[in-house]
Amino acid sequence: MKGYFISIEGSDGSGKSTQMRNITSYLEKQGFSVVVTREPGGTPVAEKIRELILDKDNAALTDRAEMLLYAASRAQHVEEKILPALKEGKVVLSDRFTDSGIAYQGWGRGLGDVVAEVNHIATKGLSPDLTVFLDVPPQTGLSRKKTEENHRLDRLETEQLSFHDRVYAGYQALCKANPRRIYRVDGTQSPETVFAEIKKALDCLLQQEEKSQDKA
Amino acid sequence: MKGYFISIEGSDGSGKSTQMRNITSYLEKQGFSVVVTREPGGTPVAEKIRELILDKDNAALTDRAEMLLYAASRAQHVEEKILPALKEGKVVLSDRFTDSGIAYQGWGRGLGDVVAEVNHIATKGLSPDLTVFLDVPPQTGLSRKKTEENHRLDRLETEQLSFHDRVYAGYQALCKANPRRIYRVDGTQSPETVFAEIKKALDCLLQQEEKSQDKA
Repeated sequence: MKGYFISIEGSDGSGKSTQMRNITSYLEKQGFSVVVTREPGGTPVAEKIRELILDKDNAALTDRAEMLLYAASRAQHVEEKILPALKEGKVVLSDRFTDSGIAYQGWGRGLGDVVAEVNHIATKGLSPDLTVFLDVPPQTGLSRKKTEENHRLDRLETEQLSFHDRVYAGYQALCKANPRRIYRVDGTQSPETVFAEIKKALDCLLQQEEKSQDKA
Repeated sequence: MKGYFISIEGSDGSGKSTQMRNITSYLEKQGFSVVVTREPGGTPVAEKIRELILDKDNAALTDRAEMLLYAASRAQHVEEKILPALKEGKVVLSDRFTDSGIAYQGWGRGLGDVVAEVNHIATKGLSPDLTVFLDVPPQTGLSRKKTEENHRLDRLETEQLSFHDRVYAGYQALCKANPRRIYRVDGTQSPETVFAEIKKALDCLLQQEEKSQDKA
């Protein structure tokens, strides 16, 4: 049995965790062994790199160094966990992968094309068989964070909004450039409707495999 | 006054520390403000990355992830420390820079050209004005480490020897490809003779600057 690599993308609060659980139980019912993982992190060394990235004491961390730390964590994750699992015929389901790097560091931080370049090296060119993008516009995401008093956005929140707008534009560009790999789902719908749509993409992926096995 | 970026390269035990001190005091006597730094590290965040690289608990760290961590540390070092100091007209003297990455990760670990690619991104293309390479053949370096009983090399030491042979070949290739930037000195000579040679390279570097100032 061939392994599958599936990533799930979207802003925090877009419902990734719920859909990760749905995907996992759906695939397990079909007899797949599913490895659930996340980025940054996924292995002990990669989790240490994650801590370094997220540690508030490291505020001096430059955008470029941050991007390279994410790439280091990803390289470790790919080589130590993802590739071995795929080789054993498992399904690897990752909460975020290279697309996050391109959207957040490339577009959000404005580092541009070098992010894809570095990540191609970090992942040895590994790309997911299917990426599910839970599309939730940044305004919707931010409005969930706002207090009920509906206070005016302060300077930091405004910055965050423009940052998240850029990230969102990055995801749109990725969807446009990778229409076969990235499956976009309207994440503002109910969790049930979202998963009903994801199921279609999963079925297509598995059917393609059956067909290619028939040919063989 | 224009700043200068000088790096010093060579295997551990090639006498870098001694020559760093000699270079610093020679340049300070000429009125330069010298910032002495090292890689990996050089800033608080970069030192944390250094700890992560050198921590023996992280034996699982893959070659590729290690290379990206070095690059992250270098990116931080360049942006937070080296570029600001050069802008202030200081001399930055760094114990190791990108050449170490190319020699150790590219040649030693066998990662090849991707190391130069990633480092070009990490450093924003910053290259030293002068690199002093203290040339000490790996056999000489290893023989210093051997016990006086002159025991046979064990498996690990043999591996290290072939690793250091590859690193050394990398430095030779770098010297050949960058004859103007990299100044090779026979590091097996006495420290005084080594520094007498380094002084020539420093004088040339400073004279070039005087000439270009005369023209201006």
